[in-house]
Amino acid sequence: MVIIMKPEFTGKQLENAIRAMEEGGVKVMISKGAETTILGAEGDSSRLDEERLTQLEGVERVMRVSEPYKKANRKYHPDDSVIDIGGGVQVGGGALTVIAGPCSVESEGQIVGVAQAVKASGAAALRGGAYKPRTSPYAFQGKGMEGIRLLLEAKAATGLPIVTELMSSDQIPMFEECVDVVQIGARNMQNFDLLKKVGRMKKPVLLKRGLSSTIEEWLMSAEYIMSEGNNQVILCERGIRTFENFTRNTLDLSAVLAVKTLSHLPVVVDPSHACGKAWMVEGMAMAAVAAGADGLIIEVHNDPANALCDGAQSITPGQFSALMAKLHPMAQCVGKTL
Amino acid sequence: MVIIMKPEFTGKQLENAIRAMEEGGVKVMISKGAETTILGAEGDSSRLDEERLTQLEGVERVMRVSEPYKKANRKYHPDDSVIDIGGGVQVGGGALTVIAGPCSVESEGQIVGVAQAVKASGAAALRGGAYKPRTSPYAFQGKGMEGIRLLLEAKAATGLPIVTELMSSDQIPMFEECVDVVQIGARNMQNFDLLKKVGRMKKPVLLKRGLSSTIEEWLMSAEYIMSEGNNQVILCERGIRTFENFTRNTLDLSAVLAVKTLSHLPVVVDPSHACGKAWMVEGMAMAAVAAGADGLIIEVHNDPANALCDGAQSITPGQFSALMAKLHPMAQCVGKTL
Amino acid sequence: MVIIMKPEFTGKQLENAIRAMEEGGVKVMISKGAETTILGAEGDSSRLDEERLTQLEGVERVMRVSEPYKKANRKYHPDDSVIDIGGGVQVGGGALTVIAGPCSVESEGQIVGVAQAVKASGAAALRGGAYKPRTSPYAFQGKGMEGIRLLLEAKAATGLPIVTELMSSDQIPMFEECVDVVQIGARNMQNFDLLKKVGRMKKPVLLKRGLSSTIEEWLMSAEYIMSEGNNQVILCERGIRTFENFTRNTLDLSAVLAVKTLSHLPVVVDPSHACGKAWMVEGMAMAAVAAGADGLIIEVHNDPANALCDGAQSITPGQFSALMAKLHPMAQCVGKTL
Amino acid sequence: MVIIMKPEFTGKQLENAIRAMEEGGVKVMISKGAETTILGAEGDSSRLDEERLTQLEGVERVMRVSEPYKKANRKYHPDDSVIDIGGGVQVGGGALTVIAGPCSVESEGQIVGVAQAVKASGAAALRGGAYKPRTSPYAFQGKGMEGIRLLLEAKAATGLPIVTELMSSDQIPMFEECVDVVQIGARNMQNFDLLKKVGRMKKPVLLKRGLSSTIEEWLMSAEYIMSEGNNQVILCERGIRTFENFTRNTLDLSAVLAVKTLSHLPVVVDPSHACGKAWMVEGMAMAAVAAGADGLIIEVHNDPANALCDGAQSITPGQFSALMAKLHPMAQCVGKTL
Repeated sequence: MVIIMKPEFTGKQLENAIRAMEEGGVKVMISKGAETTILGAEGDSSRLDEERLTQLEGVERVMRVSEPYKKANRKYHPDDSVIDIGGGVQVGGGALTVIAGPCSVESEGQIVGVAQAVKASGAAALRGGAYKPRTSPYAFQGKGMEGIRLLLEAKAATGLPIVTELMSSDQIPMFEECVDVVQIGARNMQNFDLLKKVGRMKKPVLLKRGLSSTIEEWLMSAEYIMSEGNNQVILCERGIRTFENFTRNTLDLSAVLAVKTLSHLPVVVDPSHACGKAWMVEGMAMAAVAAGADGLIIEVHNDPANALCDGAQSITPGQFSALMAKLHPMAQCVGKTL
Repeated sequence: MVIIMKPEFTGKQLENAIRAMEEGGVKVMISKGAETTILGAEGDSSRLDEERLTQLEGVERVMRVSEPYKKANRKYHPDDSVIDIGGGVQVGGGALTVIAGPCSVESEGQIVGVAQAVKASGAAALRGGAYKPRTSPYAFQGKGMEGIRLLLEAKAATGLPIVTELMSSDQIPMFEECVDVVQIGARNMQNFDLLKKVGRMKKPVLLKRGLSSTIEEWLMSAEYIMSEGNNQVILCERGIRTFENFTRNTLDLSAVLAVKTLSHLPVVVDPSHACGKAWMVEGMAMAAVAAGADGLIIEVHNDPANALCDGAQSITPGQFSALMAKLHPMAQCVGKTL
Repeated sequence: MVIIMKPEFTGKQLENAIRAMEEGGVKVMISKGAETTILGAEGDSSRLDEERLTQLEGVERVMRVSEPYKKANRKYHPDDSVIDIGGGVQVGGGALTVIAGPCSVESEGQIVGVAQAVKASGAAALRGGAYKPRTSPYAFQGKGMEGIRLLLEAKAATGLPIVTELMSSDQIPMFEECVDVVQIGARNMQNFDLLKKVGRMKKPVLLKRGLSSTIEEWLMSAEYIMSEGNNQVILCERGIRTFENFTRNTLDLSAVLAVKTLSHLPVVVDPSHACGKAWMVEGMAMAAVAAGADGLIIEVHNDPANALCDGAQSITPGQFSALMAKLHPMAQCVGKTL
Repeated sequence: MVIIMKPEFTGKQLENAIRAMEEGGVKVMISKGAETTILGAEGDSSRLDEERLTQLEGVERVMRVSEPYKKANRKYHPDDSVIDIGGGVQVGGGALTVIAGPCSVESEGQIVGVAQAVKASGAAALRGGAYKPRTSPYAFQGKGMEGIRLLLEAKAATGLPIVTELMSSDQIPMFEECVDVVQIGARNMQNFDLLKKVGRMKKPVLLKRGLSSTIEEWLMSAEYIMSEGNNQVILCERGIRTFENFTRNTLDLSAVLAVKTLSHLPVVVDPSHACGKAWMVEGMAMAAVAAGADGLIIEVHNDPANALCDGAQSITPGQFSALMAKLHPMAQCVGKTL
């Protein structure tokens, strides 16, 4: 942390600024020039509050030098984290892990059928929503507990680990028992109460990036989970909100490179939610792998036109199979194993 | 709801589209031209799923004609809603209601002192955070239950109703008992589980607009609360996330006009969080009232430079008093009573 | 300008960084700590290239302390600039200047009629487009030179100075002769070639903010004009592009406060283009004045439903007259003279 | 074009709406239901003005069914356009065309050296700025005519066609003579005067997407050029402005898929400007090719740390060579020829 004083600062203001830094547990290095006086922090500045320092009288500007996340930071954990999600499946560490399945669990036939189809094409895990975050209270809200039960049947039939969204802390004990990967949706990325509770779970967490979250905020949300003891965090880029409305969101593939550099956590990409159009899924899935993603999460539905949710962005099992065939050489091209 | 078919649609696709609309409970009006075939819904189309219709084969485009919210919609409730928040204070209906107080409750001296000061200047209610949503898990997270207790002391000392944020459904019984207005923060605006539970409370809810929520999504979140039976929703514009970073957020005052037209719910404006700079609060508060806001929520701290949270955007009791003096003629200018 | 070195910098890298700063004409103050080494510039750092310094090896971060604009900067020109636009009309310095007129000049009857109507209601200047920037090459492109001639007739009939957009440097000699205020549209805000040429004109320039320009970029574009010798720049906030699409753009009234603080230039607000809806113009005009704008530019059309351009956001002369009646007490409320 | 009337429309309003459509040259199909009345246009609706129809009294909503661009539209030109840029180099049609070179031409040694290096690694064309759009009037503005002369020397030495930015119509005759591909920068994407003039040139045009331009606006700007007779337009995605500021812009690779579907024009990607960080160029270049881009434009500088412009995002000739080695298998993977 570096503080630059205003040209007209007083001695008292300087003292206050130095004291505020020292109270944060750092030593202060003072550099006085004819026009510019600078204070630099020596030591662990993680307890310094940038915002609070900014508002001190006589302070012109404050610059943070180090990132505010620690457990998620690659600096303190240079090796890639590899997350085991059960069923012998890992995310990170050279694998390209493809998670596939419908937006919502609708029926036994649907979820077991899709699970078998995507497994046959090479998917490593099954996604499917039982609790659905919907913009409208009048839209289908998911089948709830019955949906979880159906996911477990699909798992029994295929051996695929299951990934499903948690929306309420009330469901945590049940998720702890039934689910392999706990998904935190984009709209709950800064539901800090839920993040803390999920941080006390023993399950891997798939943390989607918020609709308008910066990369740093996203990593800070991972830090919330990790600070409670759960280090099994998989990041998921799913598009951000911009002015462009041809696509549902704007997929930010540069974020994949960014988090792979800033953090040791694996990152998967959701091209389905990002684009909102089934015909764009293949192209963006290919691009995501080329950008270095550790995996993909893809919406596959046996009958997209009659899906209860997100049909427009779901591909069919046949299209998924064709996509997987294209992903093999792509994975090889970037040194990943599919 | 209006559907336009693709030029090359088949008879079967047309039948499917008609059936999908009829299953949603509407009568279908068919209009066949040489090039364009259009299907119009007659009757209550609220159960029609726009997204699902869009993905039907043979469908070119779907246009919704009516808004997806009902209870929050001014069409079905032409008169302004007026929300009673206790202590004889109302929001909406010609009143200009000013809610003031610190970002966080820090100590008895602080909260009681600020409460007395803002009351003396004409504030109608006291704000103060006990549970704080912070980007970093390492930042001050609020004093929790102790903060609520201190707010109640400030209420006892001044008679001001208290407004404070709810972050977890665990606290609902306690909030039901202790708090006058339940604030739902921007980051939880689409925490649908929490919205539903708050919708079963008997307390007024101050619903902040999400960081990147459209006006329609915001009203749909109000609809979530209202659909569970709680009609006492106060909307709060607090700035949206844009590319501009001179201000913390971009205050969208046109949203005030928009929701006053689209909805009957009252709307207040939070210039403090919007701008993030204390020196901008007065100007934007004045503009918000001129734009037609029903109230303001303003951060006031006795010692901003040492505030544990959001000091940079807090004004002092003296500055608040000066602002109130300016708001009186402004309220009069737009026909509001302060 | 302050440079923070990377922890592992070499002596050679330090030397290079110091030399790069010195070549920019400043003295360098070196502050070496156990962990952090900081270089501070003493003297005029306007010739230092932040971007270039950032990329030097061994450099962790560069922080600019002073703004990159000088002539537009209030620091070096503390008093408000007041711009004389002819006909005894001034922008800035306590006046509230209202510029009104149609989006496009369409006919003699239309422009003279609107000019007379808005003058009668108290407008100080007439706007009207002769050269129109349209998204589509197939849309009406304005009447060109004939439009300028009609504006001059309206000026002759009313005495109102005329404000109209310049799109091509080819028209500069003609604009120099015929026009009172040269408008640079949002889409040309970073047409640097045009800015430089307008900077050599003797006419006041109304510089609209770009669709997605930061406040700093906007002031840098003003600086382009001023650096060529033309200090008569009037800034115009007209809404920025965000994810929200209920309004055409999002009017950023906090930008009014920001530029009034950062710069001495006057700023006017265009609520018509910002909102894109005639019914929102009055409310946002009121809010703009409350926020401290020095003026307004408002689209008024005698027959909005048949306007060749932007009818949806144009108000009628009758509505304009009603707005002016409301603006009088509002101007008084904020100490401005209308 | 489809119009939906308001529930309470009058007979006169209906007549007006029908007449307005008919004046645009289409036949009108009327569909009257108990609640909803719909007007559908039959025939070429390209002359209908959506905005003007929207504002007619009694009109609830207007929906455009077809795209507003024609010459750029794949519907009317199903085959990919292939643009010949000289020296036997083509853009589009199965080729992966890599354009490389420094941000700015600085000296003969620099530009000839970089040209030789990138040619040796397989670049097909040379980029280099002679006229530079800079945010600050005090920053290096390019070497102008001298820069063009140096580009011609580099072309003479290597045979590479040259791509350079045009900022002012004054330079058009000289560009027509000296330059192979005329670049229109992001900031001039809606400089309609320049677009029209470039549309009368005989040279291929590389049209960068504006900082906050929608895909449709971008294609409309291509349409401006094509409507004047110049069909040799190459689109260039270079990142859009969002709230995220880790990267300079957010590269929107879904736009590549979108324009390849909506239009027949080739599209290249500029990962250098998109990310603003040299270390991200390789990853995003790979992703761009995977997404289906027809080419890349990459900033390469012999000495990035001392570049006069954009050094932070420039890679070295050595890094470029390594990138080209990786692009070969990637191109093969997506069926392109490098």
